[in-house]
Amino acid sequence: MSSGESNAYQKLVELSTELQLLKNTQALLGWDQEVLLPKKGVAYRGQQMSWLSGYLHREFTSEKVGDWIAEAESTAATPEENANLREWRHEYDRATKVPVELVQRFAETQVRAKAVWAEAREKSDFSRFAPELQNLIDLSREQAECWGYEGCLYDALLDTYERGMTCERLDETLGGLRDDLVPLVEEACNREPFDQSKLEGDYPVEQQKALNRLIAEDIGFDFEAGRIDTAVHPFCSGMSPFDTRLTTRYDESDFRSSLFGVLHEAGHGMYEQGLREDWHGQPIGQAVSLGIHESQSRLWENQVGRSRAFWEKWLPVAAEHFPHLANLSVDEMFEAVNQASKSFIRVEADEVTYDLHILLRYEMEKEIFAGNLSLQDIPGEWNRRFEEYFGLKVDKDSNGCLQDIHWSMAIFGYFPTYSLGNINAAHLAAAAKADEPGLSSQLEKADYSGLLRWMRKNVHENGSVYLPDDLIQKATGTSADPAHLVAHLRERYL
Amino acid sequence: MSSGESNAYQKLVELSTELQLLKNTQALLGWDQEVLLPKKGVAYRGQQMSWLSGYLHREFTSEKVGDWIAEAESTAATPEENANLREWRHEYDRATKVPVELVQRFAETQVRAKAVWAEAREKSDFSRFAPELQNLIDLSREQAECWGYEGCLYDALLDTYERGMTCERLDETLGGLRDDLVPLVEEACNREPFDQSKLEGDYPVEQQKALNRLIAEDIGFDFEAGRIDTAVHPFCSGMSPFDTRLTTRYDESDFRSSLFGVLHEAGHGMYEQGLREDWHGQPIGQAVSLGIHESQSRLWENQVGRSRAFWEKWLPVAAEHFPHLANLSVDEMFEAVNQASKSFIRVEADEVTYDLHILLRYEMEKEIFAGNLSLQDIPGEWNRRFEEYFGLKVDKDSNGCLQDIHWSMAIFGYFPTYSLGNINAAHLAAAAKADEPGLSSQLEKADYSGLLRWMRKNVHENGSVYLPDDLIQKATGTSADPAHLVAHLRERYL
Repeated sequence: MSSGESNAYQKLVELSTELQLLKNTQALLGWDQEVLLPKKGVAYRGQQMSWLSGYLHREFTSEKVGDWIAEAESTAATPEENANLREWRHEYDRATKVPVELVQRFAETQVRAKAVWAEAREKSDFSRFAPELQNLIDLSREQAECWGYEGCLYDALLDTYERGMTCERLDETLGGLRDDLVPLVEEACNREPFDQSKLEGDYPVEQQKALNRLIAEDIGFDFEAGRIDTAVHPFCSGMSPFDTRLTTRYDESDFRSSLFGVLHEAGHGMYEQGLREDWHGQPIGQAVSLGIHESQSRLWENQVGRSRAFWEKWLPVAAEHFPHLANLSVDEMFEAVNQASKSFIRVEADEVTYDLHILLRYEMEKEIFAGNLSLQDIPGEWNRRFEEYFGLKVDKDSNGCLQDIHWSMAIFGYFPTYSLGNINAAHLAAAAKADEPGLSSQLEKADYSGLLRWMRKNVHENGSVYLPDDLIQKATGTSADPAHLVAHLRERYL
Repeated sequence: MSSGESNAYQKLVELSTELQLLKNTQALLGWDQEVLLPKKGVAYRGQQMSWLSGYLHREFTSEKVGDWIAEAESTAATPEENANLREWRHEYDRATKVPVELVQRFAETQVRAKAVWAEAREKSDFSRFAPELQNLIDLSREQAECWGYEGCLYDALLDTYERGMTCERLDETLGGLRDDLVPLVEEACNREPFDQSKLEGDYPVEQQKALNRLIAEDIGFDFEAGRIDTAVHPFCSGMSPFDTRLTTRYDESDFRSSLFGVLHEAGHGMYEQGLREDWHGQPIGQAVSLGIHESQSRLWENQVGRSRAFWEKWLPVAAEHFPHLANLSVDEMFEAVNQASKSFIRVEADEVTYDLHILLRYEMEKEIFAGNLSLQDIPGEWNRRFEEYFGLKVDKDSNGCLQDIHWSMAIFGYFPTYSLGNINAAHLAAAAKADEPGLSSQLEKADYSGLLRWMRKNVHENGSVYLPDDLIQKATGTSADPAHLVAHLRERYL
C-alpha cells in the first residue's frame, strides 16, 4: 500500500470513527426516548434524530467519500482492510443509488402505513391494510432495483439484515428445519402440561431486579460498561463497547418474564461488550448481522437459561428472593421453563414452536416478492399454511397476518434472522462443547466463563471481519446447520 | 426591514434554532453522564461532548454569521429582534475575539488545576493550589482583555453569568445587604435551636419519591414535560420546553434533604417549562441569567417551601407517607425547616447565613481582579473576613478558601448570582403580592397557582428579551432591592 493510497483508507477510518460518535449519540437519544423521555418531548426528539440522520447521510455520501473508497479498494491488503472496504462500499452504494425523491416517498408512506396497520389490526380487517402494504412492497421493490442484486430481488432485502444471505441458502437451512420441526412440535405440545399454579405468588419488582442483576453479572455482563433499565419492550442498545444498555419489563406475578428478558438482552449485550475496542468506529468493530446477534441472545436465554444445570444453581438463590419458590424442585422448575404449546401469536411462542412461525412468514414474503402471491390472497394463504404447520384454524386476521408490526414498517427479509439466531445458537453451543474438552462439565456446574470465552474468541472479537456464514464456518467448521437445533429441542422437550 | 435584510435575520433564527437542537443533545449527554452513564463510558462520552462543542463553535463563528449579524443589526426593529441581536452579537464577539491558542491553553490549565485543587483541599494546604490559581487568574484576565469591557475587568467576568451586571451595581445591592445581614445572622443564630430528634425515624426512598412528586405536581411542575431522577448533586437540566429534568438525592434518615432539593430544582424547572415554545431556539426563548434562574429556585424552596402555610397543607400528607411525623405540630415543623446556625461551609448554610458566605467571596474576587490582593494573602484575608462576619475562626483552609470547586474551574464572577437569586426571589414575591390582590390569601391556603401565573407572565415568558436588571424593574417597578430579602428573613427568623 503506497503512502498516498493508505491516506484514503486512513481518511475513511477517521471519518467512520467520527460519524460513529454521532451514531452513538443517536443511539442514546433513541434509548432515552424508549426508557425516559417525557410525553411532550417526543416531537422535539424526532427533530434531533432527524438532524443527526441528515448530517450522517450528507457526510458519508459526499463524492469525496466515494473517491476515497475507490482509491482504497485498489490497495487494501489485510482481511481487516478488505472487510472495512466491503462494508463501506455496501453502505455507500446503497445510500447513493437511491434517489432522494424515493427516500422521501418511502418515509411518508411508512408513517401512513403504520397508522393504517394499527387501525386494521384493531378491527382485525386485512383489507384495510392491503392498499398501504401494496405501496410498501412496490417501494421496496423499487429500492431494491436501485441497489441491484445478483439472484432474486428478495435477496437484496435479506442482505439488509443478514449480509450475504440469499433465498437459495435459506431454503436449504430453513427448509431442512421445517421437515423436522412440524412433527417435533406436534409431539412436544402433546406432553402433559406443567401445573403453573405451583409458581403462583408475589414477585416484588425490587427482588426481581436484584436477582436479575446477580445472574447477569454471573454470566458475564459487565455493569461497569452497561446497565439494566425498564421499558415496555425489552431491547439492548449498544452505544459503544463501554456503554451497553439492556431493558426488561416486570410482571409482579411471574419473575420469569423479566429474567428471560434480561438473559436474552444480556446475550446481545455481551456480544456488544465483546467487540474490539481498538476497532470501534470501523465497520469491522461492529456486530456482523442480526442472525449472529440473535444467536448470542438465544444462547443465553435458551441454551443456558432453560437448562437444568442453570436452575440447579439459581433456584435456591431465586428462593432466597421469593420464599414461596422453596417448595419447588429443580425438576419442576426445569419443566416450568420448558413448556411447548401452540399459539397464534409469534411473540408469545416458546422455543419449540417459534421457528414454525418464522418459516411461515419467510415463505410468504418470498412468494410475495417473487410475484406469486397477490395481496388479497394473503389472509387465506397465511391461514392455510398455519393450519398445515400447527393444525390450528386462525380465527381472525389480528391473530394471523396482521399481528406483526414489521410489514407496516416495510421491514421485509428480517424475519428469517430470528430463526438463523436459533439455529446458530445451537450450532455454536455444540461447536464450543466439541472444541473445549472441559466445557461440558463446566456447564454442568453452571459455570459459564469458558462458554463466554469461546464466544468472545470465535464470535465477538471477529466483529464484521467475516460475513455471517463465513464466521459460522470458521467457528464451527460448517455452514449453519439446523440439525443442532433439532437435536437440542428433541433432547430438551421429548 | 427590507426583504434582503430580513433575510439575514431569518438565517440567524434558522441557524440558532438548528444549533439549539445540538445544544439540547449535549444537555442530554451531560444529564445522562451525571445520572446513568456506566463508569467505563465516561471517556467516550467526553469525545461525544467535545465533537458537539467543536461543531457548534465552528458553525457559529464562521465569517458568514458575522456578516448576517452586522446586516441584521442595521435593520432590527422590534424589542425581540433587538434582544436576539444583542445576544448573538455578545456570543459571536466573545467566541471570535479569543485566539484558539488561548482557548486551548485555558482548557489544559483548567484540567490540571482541578486535580491540584482536589489534592490541596484533601491536604488542606492552599499553598499547593496557589500557583495553578494564579495561572487561572492570569488566563481569565487575558481572556477578559480579548472580550473587552467598559468599567473594570471583573465586570467582564460578571457579565458571563449575569448579563449587564457590574461591580458598581453589585456593590450597591450586596453592600446594602451586608449591613443588615451581619446583625441579623447574629440574632437568628442565638435563638434556641429546635430539637431535631423529634424528626428522627425511617424515611424510605420510595415514600420520599411519592411525596416529592405530589408536591412538585401541586406547585406546577409538569411531569408530561419533565422528570425527577437521582444524582449525587441535585441539578436541573432543560433540554427543551418539552423536557426538563430535575435530580435530587435521598437521605433515608431525613426527608427534608430530597424534598428541598426537589423544590429548589422544580423552581428552576418551572422557569424552563414556562419559556415560550414559539421562541425556542432563539436567544429570547432562553432563561436570561443565573441570578434570575436562582430567584425562581429560591422562591419555591424558601419563600414557599419553608412557609408555615406550606406545612399546614403538607405536614398531614407527609405524615401519611412517614407515620411517625403524625406526632409533630405544624409549629414544630415550621421551626424544623427554619433553623439558622453558623458554619464554615457554604453549601451547608441555611437561608439566613448563606448570603454572608457569598458576600465574602464576591469581595475577595473583586480585590483579586483589582490587583489589591496577592495570592499568598488569600487564606489570611479569607479568615479575617470570616471572623468579621461570622465571629468564627476558620480552623483550616479546607473549611475556608479551599472549600469551593469554582475557582479551580476558573469560574470567577459566578458567586454573586446566588445572592442575586435570593434578593430577586424576595423582591419578586413581594411584588407579586402587591400586584395581585387575592394572592396573599391564596398563599395562606398553600394555593400557588396565582403565584406561578404571575411568575409565568412577569418572568418566564419574557425569556431573554430584557436584561436581568430591566426584567426586575419591569416586574417590580425598581431595581433589585435587598430590603425585601431582609424583611423576609427578619419576619421568618426573628
